[in-house]
Amino acid sequence: VIDQPKSNMFLDQIEMILGKENILTGGRVAERSHHIWCLGQPLQALAVVFPRSTQEVSEIMTVCKEHQQPVVVHGGMTNMVGSTETKGNELVISMEKMNKILEIDTVSMTVLVEAGVIIENLHQAVDKEGLMFPVTYGAKGSAQVGGMIATNAGGLRVFRYGMTRNWVLGLEVVLADGTIISSLKKLVKDNSGLDLKQLFIGSEGTMGIITRAVLKLRLASKSRNTAVIAVETYAQVVGLLQYMVEALEGALTGFELIWKDTYAAMIGVLQGKGVPLPVGSQFYVLMETSGTDPAMDRELLEHVLVKAFEKGLMQDGTVAGSDHEQQHFWRIREDVDHLVAMCSHDQHFDVSLPISLIDQYISEISEKLNKIPEVDRYFVYGHMADGNIHLIVSNTVGNLSIKEKINQLIYSPLPKYGGSISAEHGIGLHKKRYLSYSRSSEEIALMKLLKTTIDPSNLLNPGKIF
Amino acid sequence: VIDQPKSNMFLDQIEMILGKENILTGGRVAERSHHIWCLGQPLQALAVVFPRSTQEVSEIMTVCKEHQQPVVVHGGMTNMVGSTETKGNELVISMEKMNKILEIDTVSMTVLVEAGVIIENLHQAVDKEGLMFPVTYGAKGSAQVGGMIATNAGGLRVFRYGMTRNWVLGLEVVLADGTIISSLKKLVKDNSGLDLKQLFIGSEGTMGIITRAVLKLRLASKSRNTAVIAVETYAQVVGLLQYMVEALEGALTGFELIWKDTYAAMIGVLQGKGVPLPVGSQFYVLMETSGTDPAMDRELLEHVLVKAFEKGLMQDGTVAGSDHEQQHFWRIREDVDHLVAMCSHDQHFDVSLPISLIDQYISEISEKLNKIPEVDRYFVYGHMADGNIHLIVSNTVGNLSIKEKINQLIYSPLPKYGGSISAEHGIGLHKKRYLSYSRSSEEIALMKLLKTTIDPSNLLNPGKIF
Repeated sequence: VIDQPKSNMFLDQIEMILGKENILTGGRVAERSHHIWCLGQPLQALAVVFPRSTQEVSEIMTVCKEHQQPVVVHGGMTNMVGSTETKGNELVISMEKMNKILEIDTVSMTVLVEAGVIIENLHQAVDKEGLMFPVTYGAKGSAQVGGMIATNAGGLRVFRYGMTRNWVLGLEVVLADGTIISSLKKLVKDNSGLDLKQLFIGSEGTMGIITRAVLKLRLASKSRNTAVIAVETYAQVVGLLQYMVEALEGALTGFELIWKDTYAAMIGVLQGKGVPLPVGSQFYVLMETSGTDPAMDRELLEHVLVKAFEKGLMQDGTVAGSDHEQQHFWRIREDVDHLVAMCSHDQHFDVSLPISLIDQYISEISEKLNKIPEVDRYFVYGHMADGNIHLIVSNTVGNLSIKEKINQLIYSPLPKYGGSISAEHGIGLHKKRYLSYSRSSEEIALMKLLKTTIDPSNLLNPGKIF
Repeated sequence: VIDQPKSNMFLDQIEMILGKENILTGGRVAERSHHIWCLGQPLQALAVVFPRSTQEVSEIMTVCKEHQQPVVVHGGMTNMVGSTETKGNELVISMEKMNKILEIDTVSMTVLVEAGVIIENLHQAVDKEGLMFPVTYGAKGSAQVGGMIATNAGGLRVFRYGMTRNWVLGLEVVLADGTIISSLKKLVKDNSGLDLKQLFIGSEGTMGIITRAVLKLRLASKSRNTAVIAVETYAQVVGLLQYMVEALEGALTGFELIWKDTYAAMIGVLQGKGVPLPVGSQFYVLMETSGTDPAMDRELLEHVLVKAFEKGLMQDGTVAGSDHEQQHFWRIREDVDHLVAMCSHDQHFDVSLPISLIDQYISEISEKLNKIPEVDRYFVYGHMADGNIHLIVSNTVGNLSIKEKINQLIYSPLPKYGGSISAEHGIGLHKKRYLSYSRSSEEIALMKLLKTTIDPSNLLNPGKIF
């Protein structure tokens, strides 16, 4: 025993907890990956372990604390900022075996889930009860509940329903020392002391390991309608949004803005078939309404579009005539791969800023991007009603120096606009060095203080965010 | 200088910061109170100070840290659980001179306010722009924004719009050591690191002093309708709520439940004039809808009530015919003083539990209350759609022992129902000893760890919550 290397002793203890069948070591680790986009790139890790309960996660962390073993939690591995990347000395805790939907309460409209439940499975399970969980995003077929909460995921319906944070009622978390903080209440209102769950939501795995959650649900919508609208000026886009909020109230569930050249590129995915509106306008809005009465809801949407046209807020518009056509319209916006395929070397941005300043910011950075010879194209679109713009910038060189130059160009003007370098995706590894463009030194110091307090040995997702 | 008592040196330093006119000491302190309900009871405090800026609050705290001077912040002093109570050695920081509404942004639909702004003034200012701030509660004429955020206030519209937490976009806070944590962004989405504001919202002044905030607004409603509905069983109440959520979608903004005997007592306030429905049913629902089209909205409400009646979900119902009649209906629910006047010695409770279990819990505690000879009456009503029930229990004795007996009776069953001892009001001083009925020892330990970390000398609202 005395000659046994430290890591072997550690792994023996973990095996005692989980059993042989729930640990991968040696060559079998490399068969996995740290990201769903990097399948085939071997995972670097001491081992991958598969707990089946909160108790097991707690016991793992107790052993990790004893051995000062750093840990990276893997959910669906669809993170956009490197939060699931690992080093060879780190232990990966995969949540994939904690994948049970434990209770759907149709009266309280809540669901109790384990952290490893895949978002799409959650959607399907609650849909069978006539309910919906409103948070949804592109990665829903792989992404897990734990990761969604740990990153406070946003997605396509934030404008109407809010971020993940709004939908978490109860949370169970294992701390770095193995302590279980379990508060799985179904309560919308609970002001009995500090709301501890907030500390873990959006903390990217740095503060605790999420094991179970109570999520709030709502009644499923029964109708969905989509329109594509052409608009000439940003002031009209703002006017259109304001009018739609007023006229449609809670029925407005999506308001996506696409800039001129990006629309022209996006519709390429349709290969000329069924393009909703011709190119040439400055802006295109993809607007979605949801409701409970399919016939009436469609009529209302058409009615308000006519009104908006009469008010001079739009140039042209069309409403999808069928579910098939709706999917067709949304493909324009959602098929980001189509844009990426047009790029030489692509960089993706996810900034947010006050709605009133978006146009000014995009003008400023467009002008600067146009002056960089290595930038061959860029795309601008986003969840405009949330103040959240996605940019894809392509350059012909692909080295670190141009990448850094473009990052600085995009991020450095944000402080003066009161913006954020990350609306949805988080900080992880990739945005760490730019955090000070979003947060003050006092804020960053307080974040670090909290991290040091909750995880003094820096065992949980070390090096991420801070 | 050497002979000067410590407190004089301290006050001299504070005076250097604020000027003589912004400090009350000696006899002038006793002219104030620690609570709006206790006017005439002299305030116990070392001094009361009136900062006019965040910078001044920061400088005050720097001096307080140097002298290890404990501090209690006073907003509108309408807290329900003793959070604004003071000891004679404590410094009171009153926010009443930081009462400016600094910016209403009608495009981003946000407002930047100082912490001392009175809620009703905020409502009136944004209303002029066609906007609304949805959080509202009985104390709105005195309560201030800082206190509303520090207590994560709820109120009458939580079901539709959520608690205060949902409406805070940016926050500026002064820590116990004088550090200013300022993040006054207008962003709905910001995942750039930990969401620090969550640590201060609902912390009852124990973690930092809120100085300014950016609040989210929404478009003002243009219509409001109210119905009173009589229902025979709790199962029907649940069915009615579910049907109304489905039929009215976002238009349902209030669903208050009143138990039989409480309704009979409440309508006494009308002195026989215009009682909406006769007594005798088991439950009464006060339901509110809000919308943008007065004529259509009323028609819709009447239509769904007929449907609900046909479905056997209600016995009887009536819709208020005018604004005047609506106010009349709401007076039944809101005039709590009328109930208090019927009590010998009154205790007020604010519990929450899963909607499906409310009836069972009320039956359990009713049975127990009925067996206590000193309990002469009790009232049960609340924000049923939020799972939040208010109870007023009256006893004929008025001593600590009966008070404690009733507290235990109300609170001790809550753990088995997954409930909370405080849905809205917080913990403060009055509910401290019952905190373990709502939160686990691990949770309480983590709360204390956070408090010790952020405020190591325990200067901010010492002894509250923990």
